[in-house]
Amino acid sequence: MQNINEIEELVKLISKLPGLGPKSAKRIVLKLINNRDELMKPMTQALAQVYKSVIRCKICGTLKPSSINCTIQNCELISKKYNKICVVENIADQWSIENSSIYQGYFHILGGTVSSSGHRKEDLLINSLVERVKKGDITEVIVATSATVEGQTTAYYIQNSLKETNVTVSKLAQGLPVGGEIENLDDGTLFSAFKNRTGIETNSD
Amino acid sequence: MQNINEIEELVKLISKLPGLGPKSAKRIVLKLINNRDELMKPMTQALAQVYKSVIRCKICGTLKPSSINCTIQNCELISKKYNKICVVENIADQWSIENSSIYQGYFHILGGTVSSSGHRKEDLLINSLVERVKKGDITEVIVATSATVEGQTTAYYIQNSLKETNVTVSKLAQGLPVGGEIENLDDGTLFSAFKNRTGIETNSD
Repeated sequence: MQNINEIEELVKLISKLPGLGPKSAKRIVLKLINNRDELMKPMTQALAQVYKSVIRCKICGTLKPSSINCTIQNCELISKKYNKICVVENIADQWSIENSSIYQGYFHILGGTVSSSGHRKEDLLINSLVERVKKGDITEVIVATSATVEGQTTAYYIQNSLKETNVTVSKLAQGLPVGGEIENLDDGTLFSAFKNRTGIETNSD
Repeated sequence: MQNINEIEELVKLISKLPGLGPKSAKRIVLKLINNRDELMKPMTQALAQVYKSVIRCKICGTLKPSSINCTIQNCELISKKYNKICVVENIADQWSIENSSIYQGYFHILGGTVSSSGHRKEDLLINSLVERVKKGDITEVIVATSATVEGQTTAYYIQNSLKETNVTVSKLAQGLPVGGEIENLDDGTLFSAFKNRTGIETNSD
């Protein structure tokens, strides 16, 4: 690649993306170069646009245009008023649930689980969830964390943190296959898991 | 993905890249969003940089900084003077040959083969190859097209076009596996193919 550092730099960055290595990164860069105006230009612009205008909300954790600011009381992205919050681990989980159309309500994205990649309880948006429940008109919190040890531990922390609020806390039915992660489930499995969600006793010590 | 058009646009573009579909594109976009400053920002800049400063030379077909202009006589990217030109189908082929370190000399990139994806003989840089051979100090043209029907047909066209120049035209030894494409070969195969290249009779009618 005769000293074209720009290309080497781009290949290096692309090979860091999930599922890609140096060989597929090279193939992608060639495809981009061979389609300068149909692909490389719009992609540069789209990336810059997302970088500039999409941020993760510090309160609810969802992605939103940077012009919109959530308040503790309400999520300004959603025009309709709901009384449910669905708590998920990450954005991919939210997208899966949205695609299945089984749930209508607010989302709250923790940003991980308690023990995954060194996340501590304090790093997750649990405190702002408690605030949202306290200040908003929320009657039910649906904890939709994965059916893994980390996900269930996180669910326990959330349940514990919400004890003082008297809100109904439910978790997804054990229709989830053990070890399965929300983002990889099919809509049918998600559907039965949502339908069969079970209440959690929040006031027992 | 609640009406964040910028993200949908980016997912759509990324899923057009080779080897990627909508699901892997989503995963890549999430990785980028979760690594705004370590990954998304440098990648935006690297893409813009390549778009701005790397072009395909209209004479020899190689990629080069847009500040450099090849002349017919010489390829200005290469400071050393050579008397060989290696003709390949595309940039990936050049990269494979460069990585194997078996060949030192100029490259000439056709941009395809005669019948692949509707390329006609006129679309390939064959005329400028003849010009380079005529005006430069070139003693040998090595035709390193793939061992496919299209590649060998293209090699025949090149050999024909160079008849008037009296340059030595050689092609890679038939160590290439039949049906194999240059960019996917290992260095050992490339090595023996380069070592055993055979002369082509250019003056027989």
